[in-house]
Amino acid sequence: MNKCIYLIIFFILIFNKVYSQNDKFVNEIISDIYSVSLNDSKSYDWLEYLSKNIGPRLSGSLNAERSVKWTKKTLESIGLDSIWLQPVMVPKWVRGNFEYAFIESSPGNTINVNVCALGGSIPTPSSGIKSNVIEVKSFKELESLGKKNIKNKIVFFNRPMQKELINTFESYSNAVNQRYDGARIASKYGALAVIVRSLTLKHDYVPHTGVMSYGNIPIKSRIPAMAISTNDADLLSSLLNLNPNLKFFMKQNCRNFPDVLSYNVIGEIKGSKKPNDIILIGAHLDSWDLGDGSHDDGAGVVQSMDVLRILKKINYKFNRTLRVVLFMNEENGQKGAIEYFNISKKKKTNHLIAIESDAGGFTPRGFSINTNDLKFKKILSWKKYFEKYQVHYFVRGQSGVDIEYLKNENNVLVGLRPDSQRYFDYHHSSSDIFETVNQRELELGTAAIASLVFLSDFFQL
Amino acid sequence: MNKCIYLIIFFILIFNKVYSQNDKFVNEIISDIYSVSLNDSKSYDWLEYLSKNIGPRLSGSLNAERSVKWTKKTLESIGLDSIWLQPVMVPKWVRGNFEYAFIESSPGNTINVNVCALGGSIPTPSSGIKSNVIEVKSFKELESLGKKNIKNKIVFFNRPMQKELINTFESYSNAVNQRYDGARIASKYGALAVIVRSLTLKHDYVPHTGVMSYGNIPIKSRIPAMAISTNDADLLSSLLNLNPNLKFFMKQNCRNFPDVLSYNVIGEIKGSKKPNDIILIGAHLDSWDLGDGSHDDGAGVVQSMDVLRILKKINYKFNRTLRVVLFMNEENGQKGAIEYFNISKKKKTNHLIAIESDAGGFTPRGFSINTNDLKFKKILSWKKYFEKYQVHYFVRGQSGVDIEYLKNENNVLVGLRPDSQRYFDYHHSSSDIFETVNQRELELGTAAIASLVFLSDFFQL
Repeated sequence: MNKCIYLIIFFILIFNKVYSQNDKFVNEIISDIYSVSLNDSKSYDWLEYLSKNIGPRLSGSLNAERSVKWTKKTLESIGLDSIWLQPVMVPKWVRGNFEYAFIESSPGNTINVNVCALGGSIPTPSSGIKSNVIEVKSFKELESLGKKNIKNKIVFFNRPMQKELINTFESYSNAVNQRYDGARIASKYGALAVIVRSLTLKHDYVPHTGVMSYGNIPIKSRIPAMAISTNDADLLSSLLNLNPNLKFFMKQNCRNFPDVLSYNVIGEIKGSKKPNDIILIGAHLDSWDLGDGSHDDGAGVVQSMDVLRILKKINYKFNRTLRVVLFMNEENGQKGAIEYFNISKKKKTNHLIAIESDAGGFTPRGFSINTNDLKFKKILSWKKYFEKYQVHYFVRGQSGVDIEYLKNENNVLVGLRPDSQRYFDYHHSSSDIFETVNQRELELGTAAIASLVFLSDFFQL
Repeated sequence: MNKCIYLIIFFILIFNKVYSQNDKFVNEIISDIYSVSLNDSKSYDWLEYLSKNIGPRLSGSLNAERSVKWTKKTLESIGLDSIWLQPVMVPKWVRGNFEYAFIESSPGNTINVNVCALGGSIPTPSSGIKSNVIEVKSFKELESLGKKNIKNKIVFFNRPMQKELINTFESYSNAVNQRYDGARIASKYGALAVIVRSLTLKHDYVPHTGVMSYGNIPIKSRIPAMAISTNDADLLSSLLNLNPNLKFFMKQNCRNFPDVLSYNVIGEIKGSKKPNDIILIGAHLDSWDLGDGSHDDGAGVVQSMDVLRILKKINYKFNRTLRVVLFMNEENGQKGAIEYFNISKKKKTNHLIAIESDAGGFTPRGFSINTNDLKFKKILSWKKYFEKYQVHYFVRGQSGVDIEYLKNENNVLVGLRPDSQRYFDYHHSSSDIFETVNQRELELGTAAIASLVFLSDFFQL
């Protein structure tokens, strides 16, 4: 009996010792990761290059191809084990050089407003469209108005993002159907075109673009769609109240071209023990054509590359393979993500965990995790290591648009969740520029991802 | 026996019901507070006025007096029960119109650098000071160099803020003695003047001012002190490595004047049941003279005023008295805080809790709380109400410079803790301007403070 107790105590002591040694080691490695990221980061310099020397990189554009070449070269400078380009055909939509709109309260009495074509939209006729406007807040309202009230008018979707929601992505989700489906649905009622209130919580004169879709409706039924700045949307709404018969003029000459060849950019550090187990770190290389795409998703691109650089620098040998994937065409088609998924499926690639950074280069608050109960619990047990770094938000939810394609029953998909308050001030607009990114906030995001990658390897997720 | 069990169950049910009703009510009120703050805030508009129409407001300046008048008028517009000005004599230091410095590697070979006088410093002679430079990282280094190496030289304090600390206020604390005590200590060794590396984590050309002190050293022993931008500090350090005999020229004509009359601005909503129990919400009205003091501490000023406005709007009657105090002269003397403390002591004012916002208008992360065990535990039990609003950081620590004077064994002092990553990019420099404040981040801070005020009243702290 006595022997038995001694044995139990012995094992408890051993266990505790191993456990606390583990804890100490883990804390040291994470401290190293943060120290390298904050003292010797490449994220910010790389972002400056990507944003300032390359700039906006819409799928199919020359800049998108330049960004493929430059990120490949940058990954080479890190000294990875392998780097390759994964070819993929992507849509090519071009804004053209002319977008113009005004409100005409009475003939000759016009006010110019700030607009931009929505991504994927057809152009207006070259002489523009001028018609009456009907303002709605929802598709239901559109339905109840019916064809008789809508036919030959311009539909103005003006449901604002809700300010009282703390997570601004929620407000975005609740409003984005106006932009994505507005033209498709309004066309059913004979509308000539749609104007959509810009998806931002800010009151300013900056229009925000973003993808829209015609679904399966025939080409001849398609109608042009543009975004209008929030201040101009408020103005238009006020003027419509005073004069429901006012007219709106709009002109844009954007155009869809046939798909063109582009690439996902992929790089790897081979795992020493289980090279076939992949830890994926990803972001999307394409951006919208306004601004320079620094937050969406330049930040994610440079963070993903820098994670591998930092993890090479610290004193830890990875058992699993670290793979960075810079997806092409997240914004308007996700052709890169789909191609990556198809090839992974064919090759039976085992993605243990995939982490995407696509919510801006702001102070990281935590992670949104899409996985089963068991693995979520495991990741929750690592929360303590992040306490010191003020990363506290571990919730179940969607991860990132590109990596969600990889979902299966066993793997773990994670989206970095930075502070979301400023994101939609810039998102998809000319305001999304390098100057709005804070160096430390960006670097803290890099460190948070790198720490999660390390934990996933060390604790054998 | 049976009866007894029924009775116990009965009381448990009653207790649970009251408890969950309480919870529901509390959640509703806090939701209302956030909704008013995010949908119908005054914080941002007020800050725009304070920053753009008044601007920097150093103690003793005309702008400081304008800010006293304007905040009094603004509090009147809220409809408080009483508003008064509390007279206080404050220091008056004026920068003058000329600051200038250059590095002279060899005669005629000069490079201009970006500098600003430290607050409270004496001027240089009108012809400036030109001398050799000795670079140090600490007072210890200064001591070991001794008089023989320092006499008649300019001491250059160049210890950077540590980037690897997540809380940037910690990095600031670890570096600020160079600015505050540098001139006093260097003067002991016969230095002619001091240059101090700007206290920021950014690498740029913007010098950051802030208060310095000569302590009790006689006027004739005092030497001028100026800050140099971080990029210029790095340049100077590199050039010193190449040529230890280079010279530095500096000129400033700042000046200390006799104290002048100013005011704390105070307003109250009287409590309905315990009007003598005070819940204080505070910030400081003065700022440095560079920039417009939007983050330091315009943000705190407008938040404090807006807290009272919002709490008047929601459907809750306060038992205790809500008092807003806008302290004068936090930056260079805290004469306002000391006067407020002295008068409170005389009148035996009972401050149950005092909350200060003086860490910038960024996304609120939580609160730093200075109180006894019991009350800290009580406040911790409210953490759950903030979960939804992503306010998670409840730690024991210092609160705010002004309210710390009120410390006693029973009361609670709280500092709002916004995200600190960007604060020192702007702090005490020409970069601290309205454009760097995000509306939602500011409003979330207002709501967090208002929620804590409500909880303190409702749960009878």
